[in-house]
Amino acid sequence: MRKSNIAVYPGTFDPVTYGHIDIIRRAARIFDKVIIAVAHNDEKSPLFSVGERVSMLKDSIGGLKNVIIDDFDGLVVDYVKGKGASVMIRGLRMISDFEHEFQMALTNRKLSEKIETIFMMPNESYSYISSKLIKEAASLGADVKNFIPKKVQILLKKKLRK
Amino acid sequence: MRKSNIAVYPGTFDPVTYGHIDIIRRAARIFDKVIIAVAHNDEKSPLFSVGERVSMLKDSIGGLKNVIIDDFDGLVVDYVKGKGASVMIRGLRMISDFEHEFQMALTNRKLSEKIETIFMMPNESYSYISSKLIKEAASLGADVKNFIPKKVQILLKKKLRK
Amino acid sequence: MRKSNIAVYPGTFDPVTYGHIDIIRRAARIFDKVIIAVAHNDEKSPLFSVGERVSMLKDSIGGLKNVIIDDFDGLVVDYVKGKGASVMIRGLRMISDFEHEFQMALTNRKLSEKIETIFMMPNESYSYISSKLIKEAASLGADVKNFIPKKVQILLKKKLRK
Amino acid sequence: MRKSNIAVYPGTFDPVTYGHIDIIRRAARIFDKVIIAVAHNDEKSPLFSVGERVSMLKDSIGGLKNVIIDDFDGLVVDYVKGKGASVMIRGLRMISDFEHEFQMALTNRKLSEKIETIFMMPNESYSYISSKLIKEAASLGADVKNFIPKKVQILLKKKLRK
Amino acid sequence: MRKSNIAVYPGTFDPVTYGHIDIIRRAARIFDKVIIAVAHNDEKSPLFSVGERVSMLKDSIGGLKNVIIDDFDGLVVDYVKGKGASVMIRGLRMISDFEHEFQMALTNRKLSEKIETIFMMPNESYSYISSKLIKEAASLGADVKNFIPKKVQILLKKKLRK
Amino acid sequence: MRKSNIAVYPGTFDPVTYGHIDIIRRAARIFDKVIIAVAHNDEKSPLFSVGERVSMLKDSIGGLKNVIIDDFDGLVVDYVKGKGASVMIRGLRMISDFEHEFQMALTNRKLSEKIETIFMMPNESYSYISSKLIKEAASLGADVKNFIPKKVQILLKKKLRK
Repeated sequence: MRKSNIAVYPGTFDPVTYGHIDIIRRAARIFDKVIIAVAHNDEKSPLFSVGERVSMLKDSIGGLKNVIIDDFDGLVVDYVKGKGASVMIRGLRMISDFEHEFQMALTNRKLSEKIETIFMMPNESYSYISSKLIKEAASLGADVKNFIPKKVQILLKKKLRK
Repeated sequence: MRKSNIAVYPGTFDPVTYGHIDIIRRAARIFDKVIIAVAHNDEKSPLFSVGERVSMLKDSIGGLKNVIIDDFDGLVVDYVKGKGASVMIRGLRMISDFEHEFQMALTNRKLSEKIETIFMMPNESYSYISSKLIKEAASLGADVKNFIPKKVQILLKKKLRK
Repeated sequence: MRKSNIAVYPGTFDPVTYGHIDIIRRAARIFDKVIIAVAHNDEKSPLFSVGERVSMLKDSIGGLKNVIIDDFDGLVVDYVKGKGASVMIRGLRMISDFEHEFQMALTNRKLSEKIETIFMMPNESYSYISSKLIKEAASLGADVKNFIPKKVQILLKKKLRK
Repeated sequence: MRKSNIAVYPGTFDPVTYGHIDIIRRAARIFDKVIIAVAHNDEKSPLFSVGERVSMLKDSIGGLKNVIIDDFDGLVVDYVKGKGASVMIRGLRMISDFEHEFQMALTNRKLSEKIETIFMMPNESYSYISSKLIKEAASLGADVKNFIPKKVQILLKKKLRK
Repeated sequence: MRKSNIAVYPGTFDPVTYGHIDIIRRAARIFDKVIIAVAHNDEKSPLFSVGERVSMLKDSIGGLKNVIIDDFDGLVVDYVKGKGASVMIRGLRMISDFEHEFQMALTNRKLSEKIETIFMMPNESYSYISSKLIKEAASLGADVKNFIPKKVQILLKKKLRK
Repeated sequence: MRKSNIAVYPGTFDPVTYGHIDIIRRAARIFDKVIIAVAHNDEKSPLFSVGERVSMLKDSIGGLKNVIIDDFDGLVVDYVKGKGASVMIRGLRMISDFEHEFQMALTNRKLSEKIETIFMMPNESYSYISSKLIKEAASLGADVKNFIPKKVQILLKKKLRK
């Protein structure tokens, strides 16, 4: 019997980076359908609204037919189940990622034994990129064109000017 | 279009542990077909012959219809390509795994950009089990029934008595 | 001559988890008397008051005769000395724990050379549980019965509803 | 041709510790000129003003002829270039340092390929000292004379009393 | 009821270092009786015979009344049980220690649930010392007086000359 | 007064990789003179003789005027002192490097307080390359052109064919 083969890649994407895009491209080659699930995460007060984050993702990965951008609130395992998926994708870059991600994955597994977290590695050129560091650098005037797409760069500049 | 959805799980499996079996079960729920690829690894002088390792794996995962046990020699990326697969599975337990596995995965990616390594996490009850430690403990007389299947235990005892 | 054999297990316990309880049980088997010392930690604005945290601990470890629950403010080494104890217990779960705990233990050793920090490992089933993650998951509606005792669960639900 | 041989050691120094001073002494033995660059970092709301932090550094390393104390705002790579330097020094104490520092160094390298970050190790006696932990301990009444110079200690006490 | 309060500190001690001695002194202040258990470990072909290793330990910790030096072969948990002890001590210096030690401790716990491993931290001055590195340095002609006691130094020189 | 500004970069270089070459180029931009010191390391039985390793390095970094290739036996700190240098360079790629390198650097510092180890980071594209992994991959038939220079590749092939 054929597996459902839908994977969900959840995250805050505040904003999307070349690292995220690299993971998305790799996932899209493995799974029939990849759902990018943008977490509201209001308690973390993201710089961009959930609408802006969804829209920047749509602009950035236009060409990929089997990728869908969505947003969600609440428990990620509930969202994944609701979509009929059984695989969750997480990017792993560094040791600190590793520990936090493992803790989350084991907690999520306890909350829903049927959903499996798999980890993927971005290209080593993106292994050190983080949305947080990019926002910090940009707010100090850095040119961040090597880390995020052109359109995101323009929106980030606008947002930080306010 | 449908993805090929074959994954290869390579390793030495000298011998297979409950940790390996847990990863295999999880992979079998995600992919249409999972090929367990036992590496000859003669230069590491494994305790069990490749035939014995394949046979212990077959005994241990009998019930899984979409899992195939095979052995290989040479570069793992060549083997994976030869099987028409594009996904390689590796279990991640600890930080030391993490670094070594990342180094290998990045090297393999350079050798063949089309093959993607994904990482899976065993149940936390098996997170500390290693074939090496089990062999050491068994050779000192420990009862290793919590770490390996009954049949493997009997074969290990026999092997160590020699 | 007999050692005093009193150990202090300090922490915020906001709230107590099965991981903490596991460490307490193990410590109670080693030492004559174990004092659980709940830190006020007002600057971290804990979710539960110190009174509530002490009370949840009392409910959770009722059966252990040689365990005492107390609270403290100020430097932990001063508290430990005041109790006539010379051993401080800390649970170690992960690498990130490890570094932070070592830094704290070395700093405390400098502040009082006579107090020794020893590290204990919870059962691997609890190795990924953290009070912080449990609060996050519960606030998103997760059923956290696998991580904290029944009574704590009820109090946490009540607290988060406010 | 002779290298310029100026190195910049940037940081928040809130306040300077024996660990920082140890790195400065070691750097001053290697480079012709070492510029200690105190970052304003207003968004982190440091305990001491940038003026106070510069002044404490001046008091602490009086004897070193080839060391200059300065402050800066904005991108560190721009500051380093402006000073005609091509080397940035960072202290490495622990694994957590390591990852964060690598991420920063790789980001900075992308922002300016000409500036090289080098890492130095403090004496192992200072390997666990952090400005953050010292402030926490002092605020709880600890005697922190083993971690910071006398004058800094007096100023820290005064500051915390307010 | 009083706890038995005997602790076993197992190891290869090939040879004993100031790091080991520091852990032994600290353990001797906590427990009524500390048994240093020298593992034969013939398969690792130690440089010193088990007799020599026991004898160097005896010379190095003469003054400690409640410390006993012994040797053992086979499973460490069986040895600990045989001695009527329920606590095993391990020194933790670094991350790599941490992972290996945790794996061993969890394996040992599975082999005997009644024996608890506790971890202690040496003085930071000894945190980087390892028997392996000392032997390497000495074999290249280094003066290793800062790492091992005088008598051990003489024996090591003699041994390496052969 | 001007610093001597000679740095030594010691290693086994069995064989030299693009990662080593990247570190050498970066060091040559910082220091007046960089001495690449090839360790004999006979006890590790390197694949290439010390002469071959020196010669491959010479071929690989021909253009750098201020770089010298040399070989040494014995303690590295003695060699560095003998060359009138006070700085030792080590490349840091990963956490496992980090711990081992720190242990070595602290040991070397104890052996000679005047020699300072500084750490440099290769380009992230080379962060996962290791001589060991390259030899393994090549021996299995992999094309390793992305990891080592053309000439080294040819010599490696020849060596492995024997």
